[in-house]
Amino acid sequence: MPAAASRTALGAACWTATEKVNAELFALTHGAFVRQILRDHEDDVECANAALERVGRAMGARMVEEFLSRTNASGGACATFEEAMEMTTRVGLKMFLNVDAKTRDWSEERDECVIEMESNPLAEFVELPGKYGDLSYCNALCGAIRGALETVRVRTTCAFESDPLRGEGERFAIRVKLLELVPEEYPFDD
Amino acid sequence: MPAAASRTALGAACWTATEKVNAELFALTHGAFVRQILRDHEDDVECANAALERVGRAMGARMVEEFLSRTNASGGACATFEEAMEMTTRVGLKMFLNVDAKTRDWSEERDECVIEMESNPLAEFVELPGKYGDLSYCNALCGAIRGALETVRVRTTCAFESDPLRGEGERFAIRVKLLELVPEEYPFDD
Repeated sequence: MPAAASRTALGAACWTATEKVNAELFALTHGAFVRQILRDHEDDVECANAALERVGRAMGARMVEEFLSRTNASGGACATFEEAMEMTTRVGLKMFLNVDAKTRDWSEERDECVIEMESNPLAEFVELPGKYGDLSYCNALCGAIRGALETVRVRTTCAFESDPLRGEGERFAIRVKLLELVPEEYPFDD
Repeated sequence: MPAAASRTALGAACWTATEKVNAELFALTHGAFVRQILRDHEDDVECANAALERVGRAMGARMVEEFLSRTNASGGACATFEEAMEMTTRVGLKMFLNVDAKTRDWSEERDECVIEMESNPLAEFVELPGKYGDLSYCNALCGAIRGALETVRVRTTCAFESDPLRGEGERFAIRVKLLELVPEEYPFDD
């Protein structure tokens, strides 16, 4: 089985095995959360975007634990950025959000790519009022990917390449750029 | 088929038919949301409880729309408080949270009961720090039930009878008390 197909199968198996809740309830909860953050930051959209990223990052660090235990992978299993991205895209997004996704537009150095999502349950039924035109409503998702990767020592930047809620394209797409593969440290080594 | 069993079957069918996301992701999102509300209210637990109830109420008003369309019920289908409670308990909680629940401790007047939940995905992996001992961490759930019932003209009060996160009992239980069945108005009637 080619690697992509086997990861897709692993994603589907993880999705089947997890406990679930109703996706609309999740979308409504996320929406209430975003509104609360906007209120907390007095409708300052830039601050809200940063807060959403921060919250997502903390969630990603927790989510990676379930990911690793479900996939029987160890924290050091991804030897390359490419492998980490394929696991994020075909297993992680499927397992948590039931989203089918793929990577595209890889850089020649294989240190940058775009994750294209076929759907986005966070954004169902959402329309942003004009005054929130610069809000990155799903920024917690970028934060979660960055936080999860960071936890397994893959430092990246992560931002929407296209966000249909902002009128950009038809599908959500996230550009991820590798900053550093942090080497594993063995503090008690001789 | 007895009424309770047929409602349980309806709940299971609605649950099967809905789009889903990972329950741990939902729990983490809810937790991040509660933390943000606490921060917003400078750790004033009473204010946070009220804010959670308010947010839940707005969500409940939205959720009832999906509930009515999924169950093919009309807004006026529940003729009695008892029927509304059985639909909430056996269909609503199952459909949105995949929670099995039942009503108990009905008052003689059939205007008050307790919903006992076999599980609570909101509270998985949660431990409240001592300073939040009075926090009603899942208060959005009471708000959602109240908001949903209100939308179909069943005015109630709704509060936790026992909350294991506060050291009360082993299962989450919510006391619901009928205030008023608001009559349907036909403004253009002769």
